[in-house]
Amino acid sequence: MKKITLDQVAALLKEHDRFKILTHTYPDGDCLGCGYALAFALRKLGKQANVAVDGAVPAKLQYLTEHYEEQDFVPSYIVSVDVAAPTLLGESVMAGVDHIDLCIDHHRTNSIEADNSYVDPEAAAAAEIIYQLMLLLDVELDEDIAAGIYTGISTDTGCFCYSNTTERTHQFAAAVMPYCDWRMINYVNFVVKTRGKLKLERMVYDNMRFCADGACALIYTMTKTCERLGIGDDEMEGLASIPRQIEGVKMGITMREKAGGVFKISVRTNDGIDAAAFCKQFGGGGHPAAVGCSVEGDLETVMELMTKSAEEFLA
Amino acid sequence: MKKITLDQVAALLKEHDRFKILTHTYPDGDCLGCGYALAFALRKLGKQANVAVDGAVPAKLQYLTEHYEEQDFVPSYIVSVDVAAPTLLGESVMAGVDHIDLCIDHHRTNSIEADNSYVDPEAAAAAEIIYQLMLLLDVELDEDIAAGIYTGISTDTGCFCYSNTTERTHQFAAAVMPYCDWRMINYVNFVVKTRGKLKLERMVYDNMRFCADGACALIYTMTKTCERLGIGDDEMEGLASIPRQIEGVKMGITMREKAGGVFKISVRTNDGIDAAAFCKQFGGGGHPAAVGCSVEGDLETVMELMTKSAEEFLA
Repeated sequence: MKKITLDQVAALLKEHDRFKILTHTYPDGDCLGCGYALAFALRKLGKQANVAVDGAVPAKLQYLTEHYEEQDFVPSYIVSVDVAAPTLLGESVMAGVDHIDLCIDHHRTNSIEADNSYVDPEAAAAAEIIYQLMLLLDVELDEDIAAGIYTGISTDTGCFCYSNTTERTHQFAAAVMPYCDWRMINYVNFVVKTRGKLKLERMVYDNMRFCADGACALIYTMTKTCERLGIGDDEMEGLASIPRQIEGVKMGITMREKAGGVFKISVRTNDGIDAAAFCKQFGGGGHPAAVGCSVEGDLETVMELMTKSAEEFLA
Repeated sequence: MKKITLDQVAALLKEHDRFKILTHTYPDGDCLGCGYALAFALRKLGKQANVAVDGAVPAKLQYLTEHYEEQDFVPSYIVSVDVAAPTLLGESVMAGVDHIDLCIDHHRTNSIEADNSYVDPEAAAAAEIIYQLMLLLDVELDEDIAAGIYTGISTDTGCFCYSNTTERTHQFAAAVMPYCDWRMINYVNFVVKTRGKLKLERMVYDNMRFCADGACALIYTMTKTCERLGIGDDEMEGLASIPRQIEGVKMGITMREKAGGVFKISVRTNDGIDAAAFCKQFGGGGHPAAVGCSVEGDLETVMELMTKSAEEFLA
């Protein structure tokens, strides 16, 4: 693997003609925004380019593909965008791919094996890199490219709220805004709440419990209740971040009932509390501030176990 | 009243020496951010300047006043910032004030009677005007000034999410970010939720009603319930944006019970629906997509009036 400069990335993209662009599993606004923006840009340069997506593009992001049609060609140059690790490359995405030519990413921990690699951990979103490439490739922005870049930047920064946001993030957003319907993009990604999501939030607000003197908040969802209320899996997105947002809460625990008498536990922490160490007790793992594990038992048993464990852990 | 240019505003600020800066009732991030940023800037220029606030600065915005101390002097020049109408000037703010010398605002409907007036409806926040004044006044940004400007810009745009955001909004944010703790500002304004706010959201999620085939959502708060649950006025901020967020909702109506058998109504709309035209029926006003009015009556009467009016209006 060779680390290259952004100029070299641009040169490689100019040099080749038939691209397959790989995105990660559970595709989000940044990988899809990057994938489609890059594909539209390469097509504008007279090249062929397709985006490989694991499963369907989420409904709310389908505006990214409004003018996209799969092209029929045999790819000769494979580029991954916003993919941090080989395990995040889904089987369908990797169909027919035996190696990756170029990796473009912003995750500091990037472990993709590619011939050439450009990783910029200062970029709040991989889409910031794609925007810079547009300048280097002399591609004029259009609605599709700008929508992809704006989507990547805004979704990876929680609409310019998260601490990864930089001055550059705002500058790039300002540069692409005139070309795309960023109001619609913000609306679908940050404003609108489905009736199902509303019901879900009502439910977990009603069942939220506190322990450890308010330093831990716990919420749960039960399969049957979700079914009855028409709450889908899509609507669960972002659920785990709810308890941690409450004032004074250092550890937020979300318990989702799954088939077979198991609860999927998601733990989010503030103030440098090590969620991974907490979940390790139950055989789980993940990032220091965001981890998960699975625990068998009925609601009251698992709730009691989590409450007691959180109190001991935070003591 | 004379409409003047921003250069003339800067000239007037340079010319005078003892300022009283007026902010609006229910002070928010923009009027307070503007008020304190302008006061700190004028003090930097060797002048005296105080900010007049109706009641207390909300707890979460108290970082704006960390380095602020009231100065003891008799003001000779009165400036209102971000105040759209005379009715929004509280009694305590107007103590000793018989006329307003200069009005700086961004509300298209501004109706303040001032000797000189600068209203820029293209500014997403009045703080955008204050930022431009810093350049014209040659005031070097510092933490206090930048925090005020960033707070005004970010809170009036819902962290760069609302449709009033412009390229300039992002550019100005990028310009002030290096000088202030914008991560803390985002955290307190957009992430953390007090226990009182949690209770408030539970309550309005539980009492939310829909009409006009789901195109209108209504919520309400009652004084006694809020008192019983320990929900403060500070926590009401952002409440009015909740009903509009629900999928399919074009008009969100928030009814807050006030003293004297009156409900303060806030209306927020999507899809270009004219909230001002709706509120005009009840003697209210404001921005096209965000307006308010007051209606007398008990809960059921006002709820029925609003429901019926919304159904007729949206038909």
